[in-house]
Amino acid sequence: MQYPKSLERLFSIFHRLPGVGRRTAQRYAFDLLMHWDAKEIEELTAALQELKNIGICETCGCLSETGHCLFCTDAERRSDVLCIVASPKEVFTLENTREFYGTYHVLSGLLSPLDGRGVEKLGLDRLFARLEKGTIKEVILALDSSLEGDTTSLFLKEQLHQFPVTVSRLAFGIPVGSALEYVDGGSLARALAARGPV
Amino acid sequence: MQYPKSLERLFSIFHRLPGVGRRTAQRYAFDLLMHWDAKEIEELTAALQELKNIGICETCGCLSETGHCLFCTDAERRSDVLCIVASPKEVFTLENTREFYGTYHVLSGLLSPLDGRGVEKLGLDRLFARLEKGTIKEVILALDSSLEGDTTSLFLKEQLHQFPVTVSRLAFGIPVGSALEYVDGGSLARALAARGPV
Repeated sequence: MQYPKSLERLFSIFHRLPGVGRRTAQRYAFDLLMHWDAKEIEELTAALQELKNIGICETCGCLSETGHCLFCTDAERRSDVLCIVASPKEVFTLENTREFYGTYHVLSGLLSPLDGRGVEKLGLDRLFARLEKGTIKEVILALDSSLEGDTTSLFLKEQLHQFPVTVSRLAFGIPVGSALEYVDGGSLARALAARGPV
Repeated sequence: MQYPKSLERLFSIFHRLPGVGRRTAQRYAFDLLMHWDAKEIEELTAALQELKNIGICETCGCLSETGHCLFCTDAERRSDVLCIVASPKEVFTLENTREFYGTYHVLSGLLSPLDGRGVEKLGLDRLFARLEKGTIKEVILALDSSLEGDTTSLFLKEQLHQFPVTVSRLAFGIPVGSALEYVDGGSLARALAARGPV
């Protein structure tokens, strides 16, 4: 006994989504088949077609449908503070905090010597070109706390020595709202070392 | 700060999938945007278009791309045993056990008085028409163990009195491979009542 061919195809396509196993892929496909009407399916295919209209900002690498992003063109944002992230998605994560009012620079990923991702893959030319203009005074490295993130942060710190900018990295510590007993040892050690006045 | 409009649209569409919250919907949309190439997006839209080719078997209500399903047309399956389920998806769940060799009948859902789903919504005419032919000798009710499933099972049992068929329902008991301490009281009580020789 087999599923209809077109349903099988949809299973294996949904299975490519991150964190979606075979059973979840089937659940999604069946839901589309049984509960979505033709109009909803049409909305989905239209939204998929529109994805190709999303490009990146020529200056900072953020997502943009026009070639220029809202961050680079917003006069109310501080152009002297630059936050460096590794993917366009992280810009939105930071924006959701509503605590950052500078501009962004999106690298083309992180250094990963083990995967053969070297310095030439980071797209540093664009970053250096921005820094050479001299407007930027402060650089914040907002990279993952991982082997790749740490490596890239250290590398960038060295590279940015040549520009008159202060370079900082996001602080480490215990997550807000966490119970100490569930905090990993590494975070706790960093939080202890960087303890501050109450 | 906002996401590109077309990305926002995709978020809210994925959010309609079962069990997909706002964050997971964003994760899927970003994955499509960042990691899927044009060919893969095209495969997905094509598969979505093809969904409309999937219909149901006129006889039993199973999924079919031709109007007749493999179960009703397979001469090697026992046509005297009929398994009643509430949705086409459950046919595949049962088929995966590789233990059932009869035919199926898919109801149009379960009775749910609270949601206003009454007897007229079950699509019993088609079921009765099959039973009237006299080929079917045994009916197995494979419905959810829920208020709706129990109600529908009881109702069908009464209705099927008018036909010369034996009617049974899937057995209740402890799930195979389960540790007793994690089995709910209801299942344990049913398992105790229906205990059998070792």
